[in-house]
Amino acid sequence: MGLEFCRFLLSNKPGAVVIATCRKPDSSHPLADLNVRHPGRLTVLQLDVNREVDVKEAAETVQTEFGKVDLIINSSAMLHPSGKGETSLKEVSAQGIISTLTTNTVGPLMMAKYFAPLLQRGSGAFGQQPPEKNKQHSGILVNMSARVGSIGDNALGGWYSYRMSKAALNMATRNLSIELSRGRSKVVCVSLHPGTVNTDLSRPYHRNVPKDKLFSTEYSVQCLMSVIDHLNVDKTGRAYAWDGSEIPW
Amino acid sequence: MGLEFCRFLLSNKPGAVVIATCRKPDSSHPLADLNVRHPGRLTVLQLDVNREVDVKEAAETVQTEFGKVDLIINSSAMLHPSGKGETSLKEVSAQGIISTLTTNTVGPLMMAKYFAPLLQRGSGAFGQQPPEKNKQHSGILVNMSARVGSIGDNALGGWYSYRMSKAALNMATRNLSIELSRGRSKVVCVSLHPGTVNTDLSRPYHRNVPKDKLFSTEYSVQCLMSVIDHLNVDKTGRAYAWDGSEIPW
Ligand SMILES: NC(=O)c1ccc[n+]([C@@H]2O[C@H](COP(=O)([O-])OP(=O)(O)OC[C@H]3O[C@@H](n4cnc5c(N)ncnc54)[C@H](OP(=O)(O)O)[C@@H]3O)[C@@H](O)[C@H]2O)c1
Ligand SMILES: NC(=O)c1ccc[n+]([C@@H]2O[C@H](COP(=O)([O-])OP(=O)(O)OC[C@H]3O[C@@H](n4cnc5c(N)ncnc54)[C@H](OP(=O)(O)O)[C@@H]3O)[C@@H](O)[C@H]2O)c1
Repeated sequence: MGLEFCRFLLSNKPGAVVIATCRKPDSSHPLADLNVRHPGRLTVLQLDVNREVDVKEAAETVQTEFGKVDLIINSSAMLHPSGKGETSLKEVSAQGIISTLTTNTVGPLMMAKYFAPLLQRGSGAFGQQPPEKNKQHSGILVNMSARVGSIGDNALGGWYSYRMSKAALNMATRNLSIELSRGRSKVVCVSLHPGTVNTDLSRPYHRNVPKDKLFSTEYSVQCLMSVIDHLNVDKTGRAYAWDGSEIPW
Repeated sequence: MGLEFCRFLLSNKPGAVVIATCRKPDSSHPLADLNVRHPGRLTVLQLDVNREVDVKEAAETVQTEFGKVDLIINSSAMLHPSGKGETSLKEVSAQGIISTLTTNTVGPLMMAKYFAPLLQRGSGAFGQQPPEKNKQHSGILVNMSARVGSIGDNALGGWYSYRMSKAALNMATRNLSIELSRGRSKVVCVSLHPGTVNTDLSRPYHRNVPKDKLFSTEYSVQCLMSVIDHLNVDKTGRAYAWDGSEIPW
């Protein structure tokens, strides 16, 4: 989905300059292709969200080269190191949950820590700006969450590590929305649920998903970008699904 | 608070046999005193919730010596390795949040993993048992959470690590309540908020708390035990405060 966000922004937001981050830029052929098709508009930076120093250095590079950021989408995550969510307590291990929490929860929070100052210098190019100056935002921070990260919505159980990582991420979103709406430069912070999307992450479960419920990355990203286009400070600190509906905590 | 739960149970539940766990049993004089005052009723086991092997071995010992458990209270936690919650993003570090999540969230989940079979063999001595057999529970699992772990209730922000650890713990409670109410042996699982209590954890903030809002451990535990006494399967999978009121996620 991260790749598809880049593709969408390059194709549909003609003025936008896009920064993609990934762990192994040299082996990402789709990103290299995008670079060729949109010369001068895509910057690819190496970054492992589990390495705080990577995040810090990426933010410094972006600061030097661009000085600001209008929109951040934290999309990296995993279901579990095994590739499958735990179906019961027996499958839960301290190691599995700690590495899921580290990537899915701590990673996005580290991104927020180092990129928040850049978002605060953003030009408010995404979302909707109300006429009142004091209600306008400079940037938008999106944490890709998941409906299964909703505690109240949880009727099935299982997927301990993934669910817990997304619930904690939702708390991070909420905290960030409060801290980053205090100053004069406001950053809108939301959690988004993309639907069930045809990607590596959901692959083990595709057989169980009715065909019309399994979105393409193109469709999901198009819907999510429409949700983002309608964001403003009144909508900060909440979780929304691909169709714009609010998700309970 | 963990110590006070032991004291309360030994003093007020004459039939109860109590197992206390802590990291350094040899240096816990209050537990040694309790042992002298209630001979034969208190077992103290060494256990660091961050060491999965400790939890496993403690569960094996309890299995061998007692064969069942009626009530577990997961009380261990920290605010942050520094002893104070982060007031802003600048104070957030990957290391700080990972160790808070490990102790506050992964720890109680590991306790649940290894002690759930013992709770499933419990005799249902705590809580309220309805007359219908299929609605009776064998055990109760309490995760000590906190009101600041409620995402919806969060209007102040800050305390990133602690808030996120408790939100994730609430998801664990919810997941556990689902998994452990499926079989014939039902375990009631809840998150509890003890109020603001006069302990080491809250010490840095005592000055800011109005005197009548800072509970003694005795008062808080008495209130929480009353909440526990009123639990049944219909109340599983939720968060409650010391006064029995439900806390939103
Ligand atoms: N797909 C769904 O049905 C679905 C449903 C609900 C929510 N979501 C959420 O949507 C977001 C996107 O998921 P997706 O479906 O696109 O998953 P995906 O295809 O598995 O992609 C996840 C991406 O995260 C990257 N990543 C993992 N660990 C990383 C790390 N430590 N540092 C940097 N990057 C890392 C991976 O990079 P590599 O390529 O280097 O491995 C991969 O590109 C996730 O937050 C996911 O939880 C997805
Ligand atoms: N006090 C409040 O105002 C308040 C408010 C809301 C929620 N709570 C919650 O209530 C519960 C009890 O808190 P408290 O006020 O009693 O805190 P406390 O006085 O700081 O006690 C915490 C206990 O956790 C133990 N512990 C920490 N890490 C551990 C580990 N890795 N393994 C085993 N034990 C460990 C500590 O053991 P050592 O003695 O060995 O350090 C200590 O006895 C916590 O879950 C807390 O989050 C408290």
